[in-house]
Amino acid sequence: MKNAATDAGVNQALLKALIAILGAKGFLQNSDDCEKYVRGARYGEGRALAVLRPDSHEQVEQVVRLCAQFAQAIVLQGANTGLVAASTPDDSGRLMVLSLERLKKHLQIDPVNRSVEVDAGYSLQELNDALLEHGLFFPIDLGANPSIGGMIAANTGGARLIKYGDVRHNLLGLRAVLMHPAGDTVDAMKALRKNNTGPDLKQIFVGSSGAYGIITRAVLQVHRLPQQSATALIVPRDQAAVLTLLQHFEQHCGDFLSAFEGISGAAFASVIKHIPGIANPFAPEALPDYCVLLELSSSADPVSSGLQLEDFLTRQLEVLFGDVIDNAIVGRGKDLWRIRHAISEALRHEGKMIAFDISMPRSALVAFREQALAILAQDYPYLKAADFGHWADGGCHFNLIWPHDAKLTYDVALVQKLRTQIYDLVVHEFQGSFSAEHGVGPYNLAFYHRYVPRAAQNLAGQMQALLDPQNLLGLTRFAFSEEPN
Amino acid sequence: MKNAATDAGVNQALLKALIAILGAKGFLQNSDDCEKYVRGARYGEGRALAVLRPDSHEQVEQVVRLCAQFAQAIVLQGANTGLVAASTPDDSGRLMVLSLERLKKHLQIDPVNRSVEVDAGYSLQELNDALLEHGLFFPIDLGANPSIGGMIAANTGGARLIKYGDVRHNLLGLRAVLMHPAGDTVDAMKALRKNNTGPDLKQIFVGSSGAYGIITRAVLQVHRLPQQSATALIVPRDQAAVLTLLQHFEQHCGDFLSAFEGISGAAFASVIKHIPGIANPFAPEALPDYCVLLELSSSADPVSSGLQLEDFLTRQLEVLFGDVIDNAIVGRGKDLWRIRHAISEALRHEGKMIAFDISMPRSALVAFREQALAILAQDYPYLKAADFGHWADGGCHFNLIWPHDAKLTYDVALVQKLRTQIYDLVVHEFQGSFSAEHGVGPYNLAFYHRYVPRAAQNLAGQMQALLDPQNLLGLTRFAFSEEPN
Repeated sequence: MKNAATDAGVNQALLKALIAILGAKGFLQNSDDCEKYVRGARYGEGRALAVLRPDSHEQVEQVVRLCAQFAQAIVLQGANTGLVAASTPDDSGRLMVLSLERLKKHLQIDPVNRSVEVDAGYSLQELNDALLEHGLFFPIDLGANPSIGGMIAANTGGARLIKYGDVRHNLLGLRAVLMHPAGDTVDAMKALRKNNTGPDLKQIFVGSSGAYGIITRAVLQVHRLPQQSATALIVPRDQAAVLTLLQHFEQHCGDFLSAFEGISGAAFASVIKHIPGIANPFAPEALPDYCVLLELSSSADPVSSGLQLEDFLTRQLEVLFGDVIDNAIVGRGKDLWRIRHAISEALRHEGKMIAFDISMPRSALVAFREQALAILAQDYPYLKAADFGHWADGGCHFNLIWPHDAKLTYDVALVQKLRTQIYDLVVHEFQGSFSAEHGVGPYNLAFYHRYVPRAAQNLAGQMQALLDPQNLLGLTRFAFSEEPN
Repeated sequence: MKNAATDAGVNQALLKALIAILGAKGFLQNSDDCEKYVRGARYGEGRALAVLRPDSHEQVEQVVRLCAQFAQAIVLQGANTGLVAASTPDDSGRLMVLSLERLKKHLQIDPVNRSVEVDAGYSLQELNDALLEHGLFFPIDLGANPSIGGMIAANTGGARLIKYGDVRHNLLGLRAVLMHPAGDTVDAMKALRKNNTGPDLKQIFVGSSGAYGIITRAVLQVHRLPQQSATALIVPRDQAAVLTLLQHFEQHCGDFLSAFEGISGAAFASVIKHIPGIANPFAPEALPDYCVLLELSSSADPVSSGLQLEDFLTRQLEVLFGDVIDNAIVGRGKDLWRIRHAISEALRHEGKMIAFDISMPRSALVAFREQALAILAQDYPYLKAADFGHWADGGCHFNLIWPHDAKLTYDVALVQKLRTQIYDLVVHEFQGSFSAEHGVGPYNLAFYHRYVPRAAQNLAGQMQALLDPQNLLGLTRFAFSEEPN
């Protein structure tokens, strides 16, 4: 295979110095070895000059100093599960990938403080495996298995945000290496829930797609594992009833409410049709127009505490039955969640997915959905809406399918036009967000420049210039740009 | 009274322009009128050239542009309830106070989204009064009645953080006027729980003592008002038992745990002795060595939901009785909280208070207390410890009394030495914080420079230089300084 580093312009002194620091295991250059690091989970594919795999914080500091000295641009990568192409290089072949995957030596749990110190390279699953024996877990619930560093850089949210918050809410401390002053470390590794000693600098690294610095370690707040949960799949009377349901459960079971997921009829039907082993829990032919997966959970053991969540749930459903609710199934949480988790896979059977990771005030969700569906019916009648969403936190995966059997073949320009129409509606009409939980990267940077207010772009860009004056950290530039979208 | 603005060096053109913008109600110059704006709640007293009281966001923008143009330094002030002298001018008489107290026109509640848009000048109490009719509240619980803007600038915590989080956790959006570019507004007024569209710039204004910009409006997440609570005053077997108790309740009643306040025997006894109308709830002569005020609360109405928190609480206390707990009283929440809230007042009867607002990992609280009390016994035997703390969030008000009847008269230098000893112990031995919830201001800035790592000070200072290149916003400078402490 072609060795990218033999291209003209590559500084041999830099390569020699990097190899000296990282050793053979820490420095990959062969195209085959680099393969998995240059392709993103959904978007992003390029070429890398090399893949750097430091295995300690000190190696990261040294590598960063060298990159600054030689003006070598890098793109940061954790588990490479992101969905906005922020962790893969472009196709210039001039970037190096700085993978943090080998930063996994330190994982120290403090059960009394309900906190854990953890290196950035550990995966969410590895962290939760270690927490299990203490009856604890890190409650960010999502489909992928990202690294801890990546979760912080993207401020991951997930399906249980309403009970536990996002990553930012559970981040007590971190340590980050700066590109400028090159290799300096900001150490904010405090396991504290109350700490107001000047600006909380760790916050600037959260959700910044790695553009402000390189997270090597964090302190996370963790939570007690649920000892019981109660789950229902509910058919609301209509769309307005979904919000009534949400408000009712927040009032009467708010302490326990851990998920409130809306599933469109199309998404539901697709799962039943395409996924083997999942039957319609209502009745073979009773496909709902819309349904809600509702979960209550508690760390209180039902026997010793006397708290019976399923009784609670049933009691409230009875109150709402006939008025707000048309149908409901209680129990079999694992089976009901399987339906929810199978949606993405099922939809791929139907066509090409056009994904929207949006959010808005919860009060806007019904009106948005109505207007967005009207746009589709009028301008894109061949598309199929198969949306689902985290209503409790205002998140909406307004996913559309371009069916395999559509008369019109998939048209990138049309999709881009549609994308702008939907985002315009979300942001301008409903004060929502064009990226709820996936973050910002090269894939959607044009929309950042379209929707984020100018003064905010300027400030974000100034901070980036402060922290990365040579533009060496990633491909995401926050300063306002006249680049058309 | 002397009119400060007639001092030499005051720019008459600036004064004229300010008066033209603000009018008579918005511009105070007479010493009597300025009186309440130049003295802090606990620390800080100075003189002001004038007090500026804009009544709109646009007036703030205009005022800031003028200040930048004339290099006029200002100090921001909300309700002036802060405890670190961050909202009052120094005694140079050269600063102006920019009071946000008249920014209170917009207060818009979205019950479905559980959020509120609110001008920075509203007080916490005013906000909660408005939320009441919707069955909602903003759950930051503290002794003072600060303004919303001040709460954000200080990232207020309070006694119920363990259930609801601090201000940062409940801040969905804000709007801030920048000193540089002068009068520019960063508008991040989104009522969103999930929004990852580039760096979350609102975070830099939280807990930054007003040094990075002027908050004029915010969007806050609000919560359902509790419909029931259950409270107990518990005498743990010993100090270690306090942490056992905390862990037990987090596991078995974690969904409801809304306060877990430790009260030292000295603080308890002082309340019983000095505060009329508060009797010892245990028995007239049974003064505990230490006790814990524990509260469970829920928005679920006990009748309609079937959830009875007092049953829950009693059941768990029975499990722990004799082993972890020596004594406990359940119920009469209002009476029990009165004891907790009366501590500060009671202690003032005994002598001069030396207050420490510290925090540490919860797992360190027992060992810290033991070591700190040993330091006192050895080096300061005439001082009396009367501490109390929010154990669930690691917060500790390690308050000491210099008794009125001590043989040694109050000695500022000795107190400073003691202060450094205790903070050194907290920060260096127990990885804690010298300012848990009061923030940083001129009063404790020397400790910021002593304890915050150098790289963090540099970065905080660089950001300050970016946002306030003329040093016009307040008196708190974050850049590392060689100034001795």
